[in-house]
Amino acid sequence: MADKAKVLVAGASGFTGALAAQIVHHHPSMELAGVTSRSDVGTRLDRLYPRYRVPLELTELDLDALEDIDAAIVAYPHGASAPTVAALRGLGAIVADLSADFRLRDLPTYERWYGEHGAPELLEDAVYGLVEVHRERLREAKLAAVPGCYPTAGVLALAPLAERGLLADVVIDAKQGTSGYGRSSDDIVHFSAMDENAFAYKAEGHRHRPEIEQELAALGSPAPVTFVPHLLPLDQGELASCFARTSAPLSREEVEALYAERYAEEPFVHLVDRPPGVRDVRDTNECHVYVTVDEHGRVLALSAIDNIWKGASGQAVQCLNLMLGFDEREGLT
Amino acid sequence: MADKAKVLVAGASGFTGALAAQIVHHHPSMELAGVTSRSDVGTRLDRLYPRYRVPLELTELDLDALEDIDAAIVAYPHGASAPTVAALRGLGAIVADLSADFRLRDLPTYERWYGEHGAPELLEDAVYGLVEVHRERLREAKLAAVPGCYPTAGVLALAPLAERGLLADVVIDAKQGTSGYGRSSDDIVHFSAMDENAFAYKAEGHRHRPEIEQELAALGSPAPVTFVPHLLPLDQGELASCFARTSAPLSREEVEALYAERYAEEPFVHLVDRPPGVRDVRDTNECHVYVTVDEHGRVLALSAIDNIWKGASGQAVQCLNLMLGFDEREGLT
Amino acid sequence: MADKAKVLVAGASGFTGALAAQIVHHHPSMELAGVTSRSDVGTRLDRLYPRYRVPLELTELDLDALEDIDAAIVAYPHGASAPTVAALRGLGAIVADLSADFRLRDLPTYERWYGEHGAPELLEDAVYGLVEVHRERLREAKLAAVPGCYPTAGVLALAPLAERGLLADVVIDAKQGTSGYGRSSDDIVHFSAMDENAFAYKAEGHRHRPEIEQELAALGSPAPVTFVPHLLPLDQGELASCFARTSAPLSREEVEALYAERYAEEPFVHLVDRPPGVRDVRDTNECHVYVTVDEHGRVLALSAIDNIWKGASGQAVQCLNLMLGFDEREGLT
Amino acid sequence: MADKAKVLVAGASGFTGALAAQIVHHHPSMELAGVTSRSDVGTRLDRLYPRYRVPLELTELDLDALEDIDAAIVAYPHGASAPTVAALRGLGAIVADLSADFRLRDLPTYERWYGEHGAPELLEDAVYGLVEVHRERLREAKLAAVPGCYPTAGVLALAPLAERGLLADVVIDAKQGTSGYGRSSDDIVHFSAMDENAFAYKAEGHRHRPEIEQELAALGSPAPVTFVPHLLPLDQGELASCFARTSAPLSREEVEALYAERYAEEPFVHLVDRPPGVRDVRDTNECHVYVTVDEHGRVLALSAIDNIWKGASGQAVQCLNLMLGFDEREGLT
Repeated sequence: MADKAKVLVAGASGFTGALAAQIVHHHPSMELAGVTSRSDVGTRLDRLYPRYRVPLELTELDLDALEDIDAAIVAYPHGASAPTVAALRGLGAIVADLSADFRLRDLPTYERWYGEHGAPELLEDAVYGLVEVHRERLREAKLAAVPGCYPTAGVLALAPLAERGLLADVVIDAKQGTSGYGRSSDDIVHFSAMDENAFAYKAEGHRHRPEIEQELAALGSPAPVTFVPHLLPLDQGELASCFARTSAPLSREEVEALYAERYAEEPFVHLVDRPPGVRDVRDTNECHVYVTVDEHGRVLALSAIDNIWKGASGQAVQCLNLMLGFDEREGLT
Repeated sequence: MADKAKVLVAGASGFTGALAAQIVHHHPSMELAGVTSRSDVGTRLDRLYPRYRVPLELTELDLDALEDIDAAIVAYPHGASAPTVAALRGLGAIVADLSADFRLRDLPTYERWYGEHGAPELLEDAVYGLVEVHRERLREAKLAAVPGCYPTAGVLALAPLAERGLLADVVIDAKQGTSGYGRSSDDIVHFSAMDENAFAYKAEGHRHRPEIEQELAALGSPAPVTFVPHLLPLDQGELASCFARTSAPLSREEVEALYAERYAEEPFVHLVDRPPGVRDVRDTNECHVYVTVDEHGRVLALSAIDNIWKGASGQAVQCLNLMLGFDEREGLT
Repeated sequence: MADKAKVLVAGASGFTGALAAQIVHHHPSMELAGVTSRSDVGTRLDRLYPRYRVPLELTELDLDALEDIDAAIVAYPHGASAPTVAALRGLGAIVADLSADFRLRDLPTYERWYGEHGAPELLEDAVYGLVEVHRERLREAKLAAVPGCYPTAGVLALAPLAERGLLADVVIDAKQGTSGYGRSSDDIVHFSAMDENAFAYKAEGHRHRPEIEQELAALGSPAPVTFVPHLLPLDQGELASCFARTSAPLSREEVEALYAERYAEEPFVHLVDRPPGVRDVRDTNECHVYVTVDEHGRVLALSAIDNIWKGASGQAVQCLNLMLGFDEREGLT
Repeated sequence: MADKAKVLVAGASGFTGALAAQIVHHHPSMELAGVTSRSDVGTRLDRLYPRYRVPLELTELDLDALEDIDAAIVAYPHGASAPTVAALRGLGAIVADLSADFRLRDLPTYERWYGEHGAPELLEDAVYGLVEVHRERLREAKLAAVPGCYPTAGVLALAPLAERGLLADVVIDAKQGTSGYGRSSDDIVHFSAMDENAFAYKAEGHRHRPEIEQELAALGSPAPVTFVPHLLPLDQGELASCFARTSAPLSREEVEALYAERYAEEPFVHLVDRPPGVRDVRDTNECHVYVTVDEHGRVLALSAIDNIWKGASGQAVQCLNLMLGFDEREGLT
């Protein structure tokens, strides 16, 4: 097709960038215009990730020599991302940014968790890329700040309550596979260290917490969120087990009805009738949610996603689909 | 040594029974008097579990022909355990029971979760076998109701607060490997189903919850406990991530001091300065606890045990050591 | 499309049957006419295998009530398969049989390894379903005996040598994940038994060996084959490490050229320039082959497949595609 | 005890060095005199490896300041090891070297595979540390060249045949967990790369092959050995599947008798009656061997070890025990 959108993936040698390249490469309405990397220039992507079958060579990102592109997915670390996003926006490209750089609306909060911001002038234009919550704004957006994996799983699990202002107190115990840790190798994710292991990390404060609190507040429930992430001995997959006190008592039936109504039309969010396993959503852009109420009246909302699909690259393409005027499901099913 | 205690392990073909047999077999003051099984009679235990190196043949439990024993560890399913425990007690044996049959003090609560009780007359004599909490009573006991793995990890994580009456509201998100599921094979623990998977189960109510609530209340904090267990793709190991609202505000330093004081003399409970991994305690009777307070003032207490050691068979031997007058650490280090 | 081929999957509750149902369900030229099971009647297939997303209910196979079908994939155990295949053939259906019942050309050999044969009259019509070797005959066939996973990986690794009569002596050391063990649960594939484990089995004689010897002989090399399979702690994936003495000395370049020529046009067999990993072919119908010669002049041919795709259900659909007149790649890429 | 042997472990921050430190630390006749590291100076060993429970701080190796030691285990990479070993020998210490530096008797062969040798003058004094083969010489030795894990598993599987000059042609297909890859982190052993994966490596020539050929020849069978190692998704454990053509035909009974006689008195080598799994020997110094003959008269000898125990650190201590005049089993059971 002559008029496929030309999409660049910058930072394609990491886990999420490589997957983004794969999804774009097989997307019916997109053409993968290039894959760039800061560490593996000259290597073909299908050498690093044989299973993704993307036969393109990684190049350096040269903004001056960049041929015409319509859009870009940027998979850089936070901090490094902002100036590149700004440059790509300057060239007119629509951008889905996988870093944290444009997720937090409040600059001081960003600076507390991440340091100085590289392009604060773009914060106003950025739309938080959780499609199920910001769909209409994303249709008009030129820059999507694709959420982190934990906020995706957590906010989708709690949005139906948050939107009604029902959340009074929230605990999120999240669990993730090692792909969420990134490709940078170190002792922690060595197979010999991680196999037959599981542990919490950053118990005092993970930087995804303010992102979750921001979004739940924006929806209508400015509740305190306790958030503890865990690393599990698996590759792709994430569970968010959310425990919520509500501002009004709710029966299990009421909660189930609330969720059923909220997610009835969502193409990627599915209510399930038993706690979801991460294998149920592996390699998909789906989020499975189970909700119930325990004997003490606490709402339990358990969600499962693939952290590098719905928690990163799949969601980036879902955002791009909207920003480019395509059906949001294209290339994702 | 002529006067080793003769210890029978009944139900030694299951995961916890087999491990109990191993620990007893290598115990300096115990002699493994026999291993019985209802399913694998005639098989040597080191055929079923080569790594435990117990060269005894599994036999049927024949109470009439039973030679003199001093003690027994019973690793039967709940319900089946009570009458066997009663018979062994009738023969004068000291018993550590790994089932749920004597853990709940309240008969109606037992009946609600497990059905009819097979030996209610023994409930009064049974002492809950969490040594760190009931050490002195266990020295005099003849029947120890060894706790389930989740209550062990959960109560040890929360006891220092519970004893001061400080617990106001508790969420426990627990995670366990497949050895906790038991040896009975089914689809759920098939390697092909469990690998690269993780999920919650019994979200509405797991029968370990009343056990946890009973013990926290006995310690001084009758708080509501929300408890959700998860199954992880690993063999041995358990994490209990406990989130507690306290009845009075506590700083991180105060909480750490409270825990440090409480566990200073405990041989098997260790405070650690980062969230513990299950590999840290694998194949040991230890419980590692990390405690902190988050920005919203909630206490986070994270504990790790080996579910079949400190969560079952190691703890059973720890109980027997006390009941038989040995050092509680014997055979466990 | 009105003229999609109607395909029944019999035995769809096992690992390979379920995957066959998934592939057929999403096949552009096939319609999944039904899924049958002997053990899970009344259950929806997407309940048993959520990730396959096949929303059909499993029914009993009732040959009398069977509506018009064009073809069937039979995923029964050997022995049970033959009479069902015969009945389906009697109804005029084209059949791809995943069992061993029609693979061995020699009835006594079959009887030695599997017992009495349930439909020996069909042996003559059956074509061994290794497409890369029997493509033209399969186009005319009505019954494909889909190879076992080990013969698929082994014969594809060795065919270029076998066809030239070059194989003098063969050792195959094969390794497979637990999906190859089948869904039937037992102690061996319990996660707690298989994790952190690996071992050989049936070292004296696995019934896939005569199948491999039959096919290598048919190609031109009636060499003795030593074959030892191993079980690995992974789900899907198989390696065949083949060590061959050749009847004439061959350099590495000669062997590489031989393989390159032989597989140049094959859509699913790819030569690779480093030993393949099973992840490279996971969830695909591909076979990756690496070939080299060691210092002692022995040819090493290392192949990797997904045992339930190219080693079973993917290959069954590849056969059906040919027998139904479709492009053999349809529904498989 | 006043006269425990003082043993230094140099290179204790790697996988095998850390395990060596643990074994020495708990050894009844040894005292751990120090743990040194080139990369983690100042860190306590139980911080890096909590499960080993060695509460010593890693220091730099300062040969001048070294207090009196009786022996050392050196766990350096090849090349780096030789000069350190030479220096320690110069101080009079008995040394067990875990590197390859003193394993190959032939200097040119060493140089081909490893580069220049740092202390060739010591080659003559070094004894190959496979106790089951060189026990008596080790009693008199001051320097043990502890074998690599693959040669240990391979030679033990084949020694009974090699000693009778019976080996005519050998294929060894070996499989190992990621601890054999070492602690140095890279993409290959990232959990996300290794999980659900398995592959061969160095198919054209692994440097353990000349070591295996040297030892089989020394025993009496200078046979060509084809050797291909594989990496498996597990931590500790190694299988060597050995396929041997013999110079004279042997029945299964004859081979079993030969092995039974050869290994009857060995404390760490056990013949087993089914193919061994790596879990059977995990965390032990044992080698389990299964031997049989297939229909084509080829001998199959399958051995399992823990690659960092019997394949490295356990074996180093077994050597030290002999060199120091202790029972070779001390500290290893």
